[in-house]
Parts: sequence; C-alpha cells; structure tokens
Amino acid sequence: MRYDGRENNELRPVTMDLDFITHPEGSVLITVGGTKVICNASVEDRVPPFLRGEGKGWITAEYSMLPRATNQRTIRESSKGKISGRTMEIQRLIGRALRAVVDLEKLGERTIWIDCDVIQADGGTRTASITGAFTAMALAVGRLVEKGTLKAMPITDFLAATSVGIDKEKGLILDLNYQEDSAAEVDMNVVMTGEGRFVELQGTGEEATFSRSELDGLLELAEKGIAELIEKQKEVLGDVASAIQQ
Amino acid sequence: MRYDGRENNELRPVTMDLDFITHPEGSVLITVGGTKVICNASVEDRVPPFLRGEGKGWITAEYSMLPRATNQRTIRESSKGKISGRTMEIQRLIGRALRAVVDLEKLGERTIWIDCDVIQADGGTRTASITGAFTAMALAVGRLVEKGTLKAMPITDFLAATSVGIDKEKGLILDLNYQEDSAAEVDMNVVMTGEGRFVELQGTGEEATFSRSELDGLLELAEKGIAELIEKQKEVLGDVASAIQQ
Amino acid sequence: MRYDGRENNELRPVTMDLDFITHPEGSVLITVGGTKVICNASVEDRVPPFLRGEGKGWITAEYSMLPRATNQRTIRESSKGKISGRTMEIQRLIGRALRAVVDLEKLGERTIWIDCDVIQADGGTRTASITGAFTAMALAVGRLVEKGTLKAMPITDFLAATSVGIDKEKGLILDLNYQEDSAAEVDMNVVMTGEGRFVELQGTGEEATFSRSELDGLLELAEKGIAELIEKQKEVLGDVASAIQQ
Amino acid sequence: MRYDGRENNELRPVTMDLDFITHPEGSVLITVGGTKVICNASVEDRVPPFLRGEGKGWITAEYSMLPRATNQRTIRESSKGKISGRTMEIQRLIGRALRAVVDLEKLGERTIWIDCDVIQADGGTRTASITGAFTAMALAVGRLVEKGTLKAMPITDFLAATSVGIDKEKGLILDLNYQEDSAAEVDMNVVMTGEGRFVELQGTGEEATFSRSELDGLLELAEKGIAELIEKQKEVLGDVASAIQQ
Amino acid sequence: MRYDGRENNELRPVTMDLDFITHPEGSVLITVGGTKVICNASVEDRVPPFLRGEGKGWITAEYSMLPRATNQRTIRESSKGKISGRTMEIQRLIGRALRAVVDLEKLGERTIWIDCDVIQADGGTRTASITGAFTAMALAVGRLVEKGTLKAMPITDFLAATSVGIDKEKGLILDLNYQEDSAAEVDMNVVMTGEGRFVELQGTGEEATFSRSELDGLLELAEKGIAELIEKQKEVLGDVASAIQQ
Amino acid sequence: MRYDGRENNELRPVTMDLDFITHPEGSVLITVGGTKVICNASVEDRVPPFLRGEGKGWITAEYSMLPRATNQRTIRESSKGKISGRTMEIQRLIGRALRAVVDLEKLGERTIWIDCDVIQADGGTRTASITGAFTAMALAVGRLVEKGTLKAMPITDFLAATSVGIDKEKGLILDLNYQEDSAAEVDMNVVMTGEGRFVELQGTGEEATFSRSELDGLLELAEKGIAELIEKQKEVLGDVASAIQQ
Repeated sequence: MRYDGRENNELRPVTMDLDFITHPEGSVLITVGGTKVICNASVEDRVPPFLRGEGKGWITAEYSMLPRATNQRTIRESSKGKISGRTMEIQRLIGRALRAVVDLEKLGERTIWIDCDVIQADGGTRTASITGAFTAMALAVGRLVEKGTLKAMPITDFLAATSVGIDKEKGLILDLNYQEDSAAEVDMNVVMTGEGRFVELQGTGEEATFSRSELDGLLELAEKGIAELIEKQKEVLGDVASAIQQ
Repeated sequence: MRYDGRENNELRPVTMDLDFITHPEGSVLITVGGTKVICNASVEDRVPPFLRGEGKGWITAEYSMLPRATNQRTIRESSKGKISGRTMEIQRLIGRALRAVVDLEKLGERTIWIDCDVIQADGGTRTASITGAFTAMALAVGRLVEKGTLKAMPITDFLAATSVGIDKEKGLILDLNYQEDSAAEVDMNVVMTGEGRFVELQGTGEEATFSRSELDGLLELAEKGIAELIEKQKEVLGDVASAIQQ
Repeated sequence: MRYDGRENNELRPVTMDLDFITHPEGSVLITVGGTKVICNASVEDRVPPFLRGEGKGWITAEYSMLPRATNQRTIRESSKGKISGRTMEIQRLIGRALRAVVDLEKLGERTIWIDCDVIQADGGTRTASITGAFTAMALAVGRLVEKGTLKAMPITDFLAATSVGIDKEKGLILDLNYQEDSAAEVDMNVVMTGEGRFVELQGTGEEATFSRSELDGLLELAEKGIAELIEKQKEVLGDVASAIQQ
Repeated sequence: MRYDGRENNELRPVTMDLDFITHPEGSVLITVGGTKVICNASVEDRVPPFLRGEGKGWITAEYSMLPRATNQRTIRESSKGKISGRTMEIQRLIGRALRAVVDLEKLGERTIWIDCDVIQADGGTRTASITGAFTAMALAVGRLVEKGTLKAMPITDFLAATSVGIDKEKGLILDLNYQEDSAAEVDMNVVMTGEGRFVELQGTGEEATFSRSELDGLLELAEKGIAELIEKQKEVLGDVASAIQQ
Repeated sequence: MRYDGRENNELRPVTMDLDFITHPEGSVLITVGGTKVICNASVEDRVPPFLRGEGKGWITAEYSMLPRATNQRTIRESSKGKISGRTMEIQRLIGRALRAVVDLEKLGERTIWIDCDVIQADGGTRTASITGAFTAMALAVGRLVEKGTLKAMPITDFLAATSVGIDKEKGLILDLNYQEDSAAEVDMNVVMTGEGRFVELQGTGEEATFSRSELDGLLELAEKGIAELIEKQKEVLGDVASAIQQ
Repeated sequence: MRYDGRENNELRPVTMDLDFITHPEGSVLITVGGTKVICNASVEDRVPPFLRGEGKGWITAEYSMLPRATNQRTIRESSKGKISGRTMEIQRLIGRALRAVVDLEKLGERTIWIDCDVIQADGGTRTASITGAFTAMALAVGRLVEKGTLKAMPITDFLAATSVGIDKEKGLILDLNYQEDSAAEVDMNVVMTGEGRFVELQGTGEEATFSRSELDGLLELAEKGIAELIEKQKEVLGDVASAIQQ
C-alpha cells in the first residue's frame, strides 16, 4: 500500500480551476494531490527574431516555484541572479511538448507565453505544469478562434503528462508524490497526446538502472494515467475540447 | 464618483485567507479589490551573519510578481538575472515596516522570512503586501508562542498599510487602484500601527508637488483606511490578535 | 548640545563649487559639513526608448560612493557586479525629485544625466546629492538657454533637500551627520521647492514609530533648512537663478 | 541510403585516443565520425559540501564547445556570462549517467570531475561525450586501483551512449550526424550499461510524436549500437576493462 | 643548464598542424614544448557597429583554457559567469598584435575572429597563441585571396611572439616553460614582425625590477627566438607565405 | 610644437594634494595637466586567503573613472554589471607595480587597498594613478611606521610612471595628453623606481610597429620624466621621503 493509500496504478485527485487569474488570455490553477501550479497563457502578437517573416507562431514556457512551495524555503532564482539547470530543463520541456500538438503555421505570427508558477509542491510539478499548461493554452487559443482572430483551431490534439517510477518495495508506481519521488530508483516522465502517441519520454536511473521489461511496465502505467488526465481536460474545457477534436 | 463607484475615503473590499499554502509557518492570501498577494512567513532557526551571537532575531522580506499578474506580461526578474530597483525598494520597505512592531530580542536568534508574491495586480501591491505580511507573520509567531517555543509574544502592535493620493479631478482619494494610481499627481504610501503611530511615510509627487495642507488631508484619509484594515486583521487572527493586544 | 555644537535647528556649513570638473555641461562640488559630493549634469541629445517621438525630455540620475568615502572601506558595486538596493533607491529618488521642477516638454527631446559621486561621506549624502544635483542641472540648463538651444527656461522652481530626525535625547534635529543618523530613532528625508511645496517625503522609523505631532515638528525643521539651502543656491547660481525666478 | 552511405543500423567510425592530454588523471579524445570530443577526468581528494563526512564520492561533469566546433561560429558562454539551458542539460546528463555505474562508497571521499570539450561537432556530441567520458573515468579510476589508492574497483559496469531517430524518408536510423539530426522528426538519446540495462532514455518529438511500436524499433537500434561502442571501450581499456568485468 | 637541457637562448620544439579542425576558414594546432593551442580563424562578412560603413575590416580574438590544460584543474570562466582579468588582457593583446600586420582597408568590411583555445599548458600560452593565431589567420586570408574574394593580400608582414625572462641562477633565458616562468624575477613578452620591428613589449618585474642593460639582453634573446618562429611559419604556410612576402 | 606649447621632452604641470579626503590612511589628489585622480590608500589588518599564515602582506588596487571624467559620458561599470578589460588591465598593473617596491614581509599580515578614482581625464590616467598611488601608499605606510605599528619602513624605493609615444609629425614625445594619445602610432607606459630601474614596460603599436632605435629614444624620454616625478614625490612627502631613502 502507498503512503496515501493509493493503488500502484492510481493517480492523485486532480482539479483544474479555469480563469484563476483575470489578466491572462488563459489561466488555470491545476491541483494534483498536494501539488498546485498556476498556469497562465499569454498571447503576444509577434514572434522571436529567429522566426520573423516566416508566417509561423511560437510557444515558449517559463517555470518557477515560490520559495516556500517546498517544505524547506528555497532561495529565489531572481535573488541568485541566475536560473538553475533544473528550471531550464523543465521550461524547455514544457515549451517543446506544447509545440508538438500545435500547428504553428495555423497559429500565425504570434507567440504564446506559458508561465507555470508552482505555489505548492508535492512531487510531479513538471508533469502537472504540462497538463495545466495545455489546458491554459487551449483556453487562450480557443478564445482566439471564437473571436475569429484565428480562422481554424491550430491545436491538433490533447496533451498531458505524468510521472511513473520504480520503488524498491512497491515496484512500479504511477504519479509519484514527493516522498515517493525521493525514494524511487527509477523515475520517468511521460508526455502523451490524446491519440496515445509519445511526445517526450525521459527515464532516469537514480544511481540505478532498469531493464527493458521494467520499461514496458512503466509505459503501460503512464498510458493509463495520461488517458485519465486527458479525460479531465476534455471535461473542463467543454466547447474548446470539441473544437480540438474536430 | 470613482471608476468603481467608491467614495473618496472608501477602501476596496479586503479579504484574508489564512493557511492558503500548507508548508509555511504562516500563510495568507490577501485580496484588496483586484490585487491578490500570497504572503508566506517562514521561520528559520538562525540569523544573518551580522547578528550572530547578539541574542536578537531578524525579519526580512522578498517581493515578486508573477509575469502575468499585470495586464501586459512582464519579464521575470530571474530571467533578467537581476532584481529591479522597484522590487528592492519594496522588499526593503516591507522588512523595515515589520521590524518596527516586533521586539527582536524577544524573538530570539531566529529569522522570519516574508515572501510576498503578487499573483494578480490592480494597484497598491506594496501596501497589500505589508498588511498581508503582518498577518502571516502574526500567524507564524503566534504558533511559536502557542507551542511554547517563545515564552512571550514579541509582536508589540498591529501593522497595516494603504495608499492615498491626489487626483486632478477627484481630489484626495484612499486606496488607489491601478487606473487611479497611473493618473494620480501625488501618491503616498503610509504604514501605521494599531496605536495610530507612523512607521513609514513615502509621499511622492509624480512630476508634481503638494502643499502642507494637502499632506494633512492625505494623512487623515490614510489613518481612516489603516484603522479599518487593522480591524480586519484582528477579526481573522482571533486568539493571536488577543495575544498581541495583551 | 549636538556633537558638533550645533543647535537642533541648524544646518551644517554648506558650500557649492561650480564648474568643479571641466567636461560636464554642469558640475558642482557640494560640501555639507563632512559630506562632499561631485554632482555632474550631462546633456544628451536623445531620450530613452519609452519617450521617443513624444517631444519630451527626460532626467535620470546615478549615485555612487567612492570605496573610501566612508570610515570603513566598502566594496565597489562594479566589483560586486550589481548595484545595491540602497543605491537604486537613492538614484531613483534623485531623478524623480528633479523631474518635479522641470517642464519636460520645454526641455525637448534631450536627456539630462545626473551623476552624484560621493567622495567623502558624513551623513545626508542623498539629500546633499539632490541639492547639488539641482544646482548642476540649473547650470547645464541655464547654458542651453543662454546659447539659445532652449527658447525658454524649462526649470519651474528651485529644489533642495535635507534630513530631519528624532534623537532619544536631543529630540527633533535638522541635518543629521553620520553619528546622529546612526543613533536616530526616526529618520526623514524631505525634498521641497522654492515655493515651499513638497516633492518627496520619506519618513522611516528605525525599529521605532512616530506620532502625528512629532511629524509636524519634523516638517517644520525641514522647511527651515530647505529655505536656507535654496537661498544658497540662488546666491551661487546668479543669473541662472534669476532666469528660473522669472 | 544515408548521406554518408551508411546502413540505417550502422554506427559511424569510432576511435578513442587515450592519454590525449598529459595533465589529467584520465584523458581521451573520442572521434565519432566528424564529432571530436576531448574527455578529461580529474580526481580531487574531497567532495562537495552536501556530501562531506558521508564516506561517499561524487562524479560531476562539465560540457562545452569551442566556438568554431560548429559550422557557424557560436558565442562563448564565458563571454555571454552564462551557461545555456542546453549545456546545463547535457552536463547534468553526463554526470548522472556516470554515477549510475559507480559504487560511490567504494570511490571514497573524492570527486571525479569530467570535462567534455567538443572541438569539432557533427551531431551526437552529448552521446559521444558520455562514451568518451566513461573511458576517461575508467582510466583515471583504474590508475587509482593500480596504485592501491582504491582497494577495490568502484566501477560496476561499462557505459556508453548513442542517438537514434526517425527520418521521414529513411525511417529509423542509428547514430545521427548533424544533417540527419536537423531533419529528424524524432530524436532519442539512449545510455546503457554493458549488461544491456537502461540508464537514461530521452526521446523527443520535434514538433512531432511517435508511436509505441516506433519506440520499440528505436530501442532495438540503440541496443545494437551501444553494444558495439562498449566492445570498443573494452578493446582500448585493456587491463582496466578486465578489472571492471571481475 | 635548464631543466629540460636547453641552452639559455634555445626555443622549445615547435610544430604547427594546419587544418586541425574542419569547420574554420583557418585552423592550426600549435605545439611549443608542452604547450598546445588550437588556433582557429573564422571569417565573418560584417564588422562591429563602431566600424560600419567605414570600408574597413576588423580582427578580434578570444582566448580560453580547458579546465585541465593545467596541472591543477581550474574553474571554467563560463561557470564563474565572468572572464578573468588575465584572460581579458591576453585576448586584447592577441587582437591588437594581429591588427598591426594587416591592412584593414584591404581586408574590406569583414571581421576575422581568432579563437585560441589552450588544450595543454606549459608556459608561454599567450605567445604561442599569437604565433599560432597569425598562422591560422594567414591560412584564412590566403584562401580569400586565392578564391578572388580579396583582390590583394592585406597581410603586410609575418608576426610571432615569444617570452624571455631573468632567472636568479640561469640569468637571461628564452621561451620559458611553466616551471621557469613561476621562478622568474622578470618576465617579458615580445611580439615582432618579420622585418624585426616591435609590435608589443610587455616587461614585468614580479616583486623585482630590471636594469636597462638587462632589458637590452632580453630584447636580443627575443629577436633571435622570434626570427626562428617566423622561419617556421614560412615553412608551413608555403604559397601563402610567398603571397605575404611580395 | 605640441598643442599645449610643450617641448617634446616636457611633462605637464603636476601637483599632489595630500590628505585630500579625511577617512583613508593615505589620500592624494594628483593632477597631471587636465588629468585628476583621487588616490586613496586603505590599510586592512588581514590578507587575502591565498596569503594567510605566510607572515606577508599584500597590496591590491582598484581603478575607476567617474562617468563624466571624459568628454563623452561613459556608462558606469556598476550599471553594466561588469568591469571592462581595460579597467582590469589597469588595476592589475597598479597593484603589481606597487608591490615591486615594497618588502611584503616587512609589511606583515596586512593589506593595502589602493583606490584610484579618475575624476577628470585628459590622457595618462593609468600612469598618473601609479604616481599618485605610490604617494598615497607612502603616506599610509609612513604613518604606520611613525605610530610604531611597523618597526621598519617596508617601502624600498620610490616609484612613478609616465607615458611616451611616437607621433607621425612630432616624433618622440613625453607625457601624452588625450589628443596626442588618440593620434599616436606607438604608445608606451613606463614604470620606474627612484634608482632608475624598470618595473613595467608596456609598449604597443596601434596598427603600427616600432624599431629598436625608436624604443631606445622612448626609454630615454621616460627616464627623464619619471626622475622629475620622483623629485616631486620627495618634495611633497617630506619626512616620509627621508624614511624611504634611508
């Protein structure tokens, strides 16, 4: 039995509050167990220099944690004057993942800025960020379609992420909380689409290794979890979800 | 009449949600009209180098805004690699204001870290931060007293802040929202105690000046607003408020 | 009696040497007791990006201290690679204060850079900087008027600053030196115009608070001191002073 | 047929020159097709602060490219004053991968610094770095064992890495050069041990996605390539290889 | 006798491998005893802002050391986030020296970037960098002439550099290795042309001083060494050397 | 004839005001023609980490220019967040030069910080800084000897510096002002002792070269100028000068 009584293949409770903050074009507070992330999508009517004049859009993401999102207060990256390698990895991952389900030409010459700010952390902050960021982006883009700014829906599929791992005693587990994540020998983050295709796969042995059959088991767990998360997204997005599915 | 229908001497609606985030020793989400700030107080059992061995505690504050707290997305200070002058001014102000109502010797050799993170901005973020930070700090310190870690309550009085200003057409006004703040000729931030004494007074003419009698009128408005904010603090803090008043 | 024999309402001896350095359009060495600041005003024929094409000018200030301006050598901010919060506060204050007495439209699309470099410090460096910076700016702008580059004098009034404070034993005092500043319970910087209107008011309790009547007393002292400083400015500026008063 | 005439499942020519540079405890120049990386392993007799007194060692890596390792000159990270997200990701990956095949307790309180400096780049620089870094580390650690500084060989298995990908026309391919990497829809880096267990798996759709059966095909290619690389390592390492295999 | 058996006026063995790396327009690996530097010359078809529209070219240099080029590993400047004073001095010196033998107008509006990366250090890295950088630049520029991009050879003379010094016991010595450099009382770097004219002269007493007659002796040694280095350059450059001599 | 009517071998007027600033142990304002530098020497009772416990002292220097010391305002290095290569070169030069005439063992475990702040620049700021810095250091050290803190005078000789150069029309000239420096083909900075021995020699062709006989002529000019500067130092230093000469 897991610390919080879950089955090995069970997600933590997930909620998404739409329009959590008033200014952004899309804003979602995603809660996955004890992890809470404000995901904001901002639409800007221009693209970075390397894309100018190409008739394509861009999606980029930033990720941060409040100092006291964690049990021990951490130092702000703005105070240290630089962004950690971990933060960079995560924000590059979020941006790349979202771009995989958007037709950037249909988006046109605009940038979608995704801001994922973790206000409370209990494991899985990067995968919760991806799931919430997709939802915020869908909200923002859906509104561009609704207003007629975009003629066609550029989002090509749903997108969600979860973590899976190997625990010495419990074996293969889905959606690790902080305590489980710290103890896991193998940790894998999986990003998938509504069609069940992979977008990102990052498996890491923490001073450990894993076999091919363990990998197969982990992927199966991830597929199950992500399918459930995408169900949740469809539910909260309502009409926007229908527009994506057409 | 003001844009939102308020009287010149009327505060915006104020709420404080205690224990908004689980990890900090004291956590408050303060809402003042459209301004929302997460104020977290963290207790650390040591002091900065310049105070070691002096038997005194310390209170320090950090302030930040989510990029999309504002109408236009702003660049993260962690991305720019440095903190703006505005941010520095605000966090120095918050720390200094709180220290004025705490007996640092009674606090003992511990530091209280205050983190004010603005998740939605509509004017008055620095004064809302002070009012919310006091409440978060009171929660955290109150618990140290309750647990017996501290023998006596080191907080000596209540503390709250508001802004007042001069508008060309409306005259003297209390608690400016973003629209009013942008238009005001004179802007003043006032921090006061429960006893009605000044802790900080920062009045600034924005390419304008003000007379002594205008100053007197502004101070009167501020006094009224701060008294109401402190009433609110007493209400939400309950037992902790009683401990401070003794 | 104060350490240096002054009355509570007495300024330290003040001198201003005009054209102290040859290159700047306006250069003043201001001495206020043991505090010495080189104030240089440079005129640049363009404005920062946010003002381009608006037909308005800009005034901005930088402040710094030589490492050994103080009793203990301090580390250079260029060596640390960043500017302290204190420096940022001061340079923002100087720029804002000067802009309050200049008609930026009459100044036209040019920037006045003010550099205040403290070569010897004994308290009150920020207020001495403002008083000296105004004088250097008046020199530089006066020459633009004289040469016909500017058709009308854009400076609308005189401007000077001083500090006032509350000492436990001496009570309310004017123009604090370093020793007095370190001991003061309340410290207030006041910037006023020749007409006696307020431009900036920054009062701070240092782990202390102050009452409304104490505030009134402090403001009275400041008014007296600033009137004397402005007399001094008129004296040294000669013809330029007359041009401002018209 | 691939640009350079290789079969889809064929590695580029690989060489490893041992003791390329004289100062490091282990130094290898690895060449994989047109990619050349100097991999140096330095042994330091202490560990980072977070490990002090734990009786364990540490392995950490840094990665860099000469400005003209690439076809277009890139700006030095030392000139920009900060390390890019890409560099951070790669150096974290190298360190983590190596730690998975070292018994850090047997290594004792010492740090192995791995420096991977790409002097010529033609795709696959991060995987060539891992393969070369393992060899340099094995050399350095082998010498510690030989000299009796270490009583037992702390390296528990061989380690090598390669990239695999999906090309629109050629399908699944092994060991992508720069031209192939730029065109690939899916790119995966795989790190495996001599026993055929996974250490890291990083698969990424570049504005594309991949199915489970494509993933299976990619993993098969990677296993074949890595087995060949490890054969190469055993060959060049000679006695050190035997010590690892015992 | 010197540590390595050389006479006082004897250079260490020197080799230059042309086209060491494939991408740069000119690439040379220079070896001077135990010192090895990769010198790459890159041609860019534009000039820095301060030269635009002047019809002149520019030559600029960057210098770096691999962390383990030295006996003790040094921290990367990219990790420290800033370039040391020593590195700045060296790269300014290299650029300035090369510009002295190039007719920048004949070069036209292009920049030559010189990258000197020390992969192994044993004293004299800055002078070996200059000698190698000249050779790499000559290769790159020679090819521009050969291809007809440049109508005339803009290089006006050969250029090489060496170090000389004063050792307490051995007296005046040429081409100091690391051990000699650490012990020397006086250290001088000399850059000269093929015609025997000085380009740079940097003599430094290390907590010591030197007389006029010692200076004369040092210059004589340097002239001899540099003449030999330039012979070497002519040998390896072949046809390009002839083009320079015309 | 030179712009300012000087002979080719004539220094500009030189003055040194001792005790210009009150706080430093030694303070000198040196004026060389239109160049003015405040040179402050601060004594600290400890040495940098690399010297601890060696019973030796250290001398280190920092150099800076006020933004408007020059004809065009330059950006502060503290605002840019980094020190330029030019500044680093100069401050390293000043420190190295002073250390050549101090017996660091006699100085004992203390550091002398030299701060050279150029308040007005007209060429030769680095050599004026050295001449002024020596004088400030002599003042500070002389007082340590006088107070008995040091038993013997650790300064072993006088030290001064000047620049010499080659002008196309005027030929060899001494002590270049800004206008001459900008036009010179060859520029050389020379640092010498009272005994006429060299400490530093930095000769640079600015897109030009120089012959051996030109070098000889430059050194002769420098010797003459430096002898005159050292006479000046002896004059202003009075008793301290006598202590050095014993």
